[in-house]
This record gives sequence, structure tokens and C-alpha cells, in this order.
Amino acid sequence: MSRSDTPPLPTKDRLIRSAAHLFRRHGYNGVGLNDLLDQASAPKGSLYHHFPNGKSDLAIAAATWASDEMLRLMAASFSPADSFEAGLTTLCHKLAKLFDLSGMADGCPVSGALFDGPNNDLFRNTADHIFEGWITEAEHVARGFGAPPDQARRDAELFFMLLQGGWTLARARGSSDVLRELPNQFSRS
Amino acid sequence: MSRSDTPPLPTKDRLIRSAAHLFRRHGYNGVGLNDLLDQASAPKGSLYHHFPNGKSDLAIAAATWASDEMLRLMAASFSPADSFEAGLTTLCHKLAKLFDLSGMADGCPVSGALFDGPNNDLFRNTADHIFEGWITEAEHVARGFGAPPDQARRDAELFFMLLQGGWTLARARGSSDVLRELPNQFSRS
Repeated sequence: MSRSDTPPLPTKDRLIRSAAHLFRRHGYNGVGLNDLLDQASAPKGSLYHHFPNGKSDLAIAAATWASDEMLRLMAASFSPADSFEAGLTTLCHKLAKLFDLSGMADGCPVSGALFDGPNNDLFRNTADHIFEGWITEAEHVARGFGAPPDQARRDAELFFMLLQGGWTLARARGSSDVLRELPNQFSRS
Repeated sequence: MSRSDTPPLPTKDRLIRSAAHLFRRHGYNGVGLNDLLDQASAPKGSLYHHFPNGKSDLAIAAATWASDEMLRLMAASFSPADSFEAGLTTLCHKLAKLFDLSGMADGCPVSGALFDGPNNDLFRNTADHIFEGWITEAEHVARGFGAPPDQARRDAELFFMLLQGGWTLARARGSSDVLRELPNQFSRS
């Protein structure tokens, strides 16, 4: 047993997390199979056992894992909040901290895995499905705080676009300030 | 002379435009030198004559060219408009048309050239400089329509984030509708 409190991760989990990390930093086409295997300390055979189509299966798994983490961050931020804006403020501060920890160079893990690679329907549909998942969750939260259906949907789409656009600007500036200030843009409405 | 009304482009221009097209679709790491030379019908020697550092010089030139096109689109949209919102509506319709023409698969040409490649300061600083150019131009337009300085700056940053986030969502959905609806998000304020 490791002395650390966190149990060691199985190879499949290590592969997925390494892929999410590498794709968001270098884009799908900037990552080779050997980079993935090195980073995960995994043998090639186990990659193809868990992901028969290799890198493209791993990209889908990595984007899905990163998206699930995002949904957990959203739940942890919005559940204890007493307004949509308060939950958004908590979420933006958490994202800013993650951005700083990443060395301020990482992009969106979903776009990095799925848009910078082959332009195929599977990748695009997966990205669409993931992003709609975030938007639907934000819409659900907004409804829970009493927003009428039309406004909740529009708020949720604005939420998504601010996070994506804000992250891009933070990356260009090399500063997480823009993420912490996103709630001011949202609450202009 | 060609019979077409547009004069033939010199090799340097063909290289820059081909690079902008390929990088925004496949990302920096997804494009090889031979792809660039093929698409531009250019010999390798002329690439290194115009761009001594090869692909990385070309990425900077392509992102700068694409940014200049964006600034021209902004000027053509905002100059004849009688409000910021009217100019934004025109711009979003022009961008939606470009998105449709591109086959709905292209990303931001600046991010594609500069973020999906090597994480170096030159690329990041160039992206920052380009994006600040768009934001400063939008801020200038907003000031011209009478917005106070603080609001003009905030409007301009919202403008940038909506365009970036909206384009990402349009790409995932495979639909330009989200771009045409961006002005509704902006004018909630």
C-alpha cells in the first residue's frame, strides 16, 4: 500500500487522466501514443485492451471524464448556493484555481480532445452531447432558482459561452483574473 | 492574366491563406509542412524564403492575417451601424455565413494556429496581442456610441467571449443559429 491517502489508480483510470491532461494542453494531434503510455506508465497492450480503437477511443473517454468532473464542480458550486449568481461565483473561483494549478496553459479538455483531432461525426456529436449536458444542467439550476423556462435556457447558454470564451481569454492573457470576473458579465442582465 | 476578376495571389499570400485554412480546421499539430505546400501549390524553398522558421513563422503570419480579416469584418459591420447592437447583429450574420461556408467544422483561426501548437511565450503573446486588438477595437466602437469607459471595456470583453464561446457551441452543434442569436445575449444588459 502507498502511504498516500489516495489509493493507487488502475491502469485504465491512469490512461484516461493522462489523456485528458495531454490533449487539453497539446490538442489531439499534438499527442502521440507513446506520450500517453509514458505519462500513464501503462503498457501498450493494456491501452488496446481498454480502448480497442486506441487514441480515438481514449479521446472520447478523456473528454467524458473531464466533463463528468465539470458536472461535479457545478454541483458542488450550485448546490449550497442561494442564487444562480452565487453558485456561478463559486464555480468561477474554483475554475480559476484549477487554471492557475495547470500552469495557465491548458485549454478546454473537451475541445482539446475532440476538436483538434479528426473532423468526424463521432467526435463532433460527442462534443455536442457533452456541452449540451453542461447547458442542460445549468438550465436545471436556473429553473430551480425560479427562472422562467425561456430565461433559464438563455442564462444557461450564456453561462456556457462565458466559460468557454473566458477560458480562452484567460489562456491568452496568462491570467485567471478574467475567470474570477465572469460573474460580473453574467449578472449585467 | 487569369480571366477571373481577382488577380492571382503571390506565393507568400497563398501560403498564409492556406495555413490559416488548415490550422483552423486541424490545429497546428494536425498540419504537416507537405499539407501546407500542397494546398498553396508552393515549393519548399519559397516557404523558407518567406518564413525562415517554417511552420511556426507561418502560424504567426496566418493568425495575424485572419485577425486582420476579422478587424475588417468588424469595421464593415460597425461603421454603418447606428448602435453597437446593430453593428453586432450585422457582424454575427456575416460570421454565421462564413461558418456555413466553411462546412461548419472550422475553429477560431487564432486559437487553431497558436494554442494547439507548442506552448511557448511567442505564440501565447501573439494570441494575447491579437485578441486584445479585437477587444480594443470593440471598446473604441462602444465609446463612439456613447458608452462610459468602464462599460465600454466590459461590453468589449463580453463581445469577445460571446464570439469565442458562441463559435465553439456552433461548431459542436454543427449549426450557425447560435451565432445569429448572439446579439440577444449581448443586449440583455
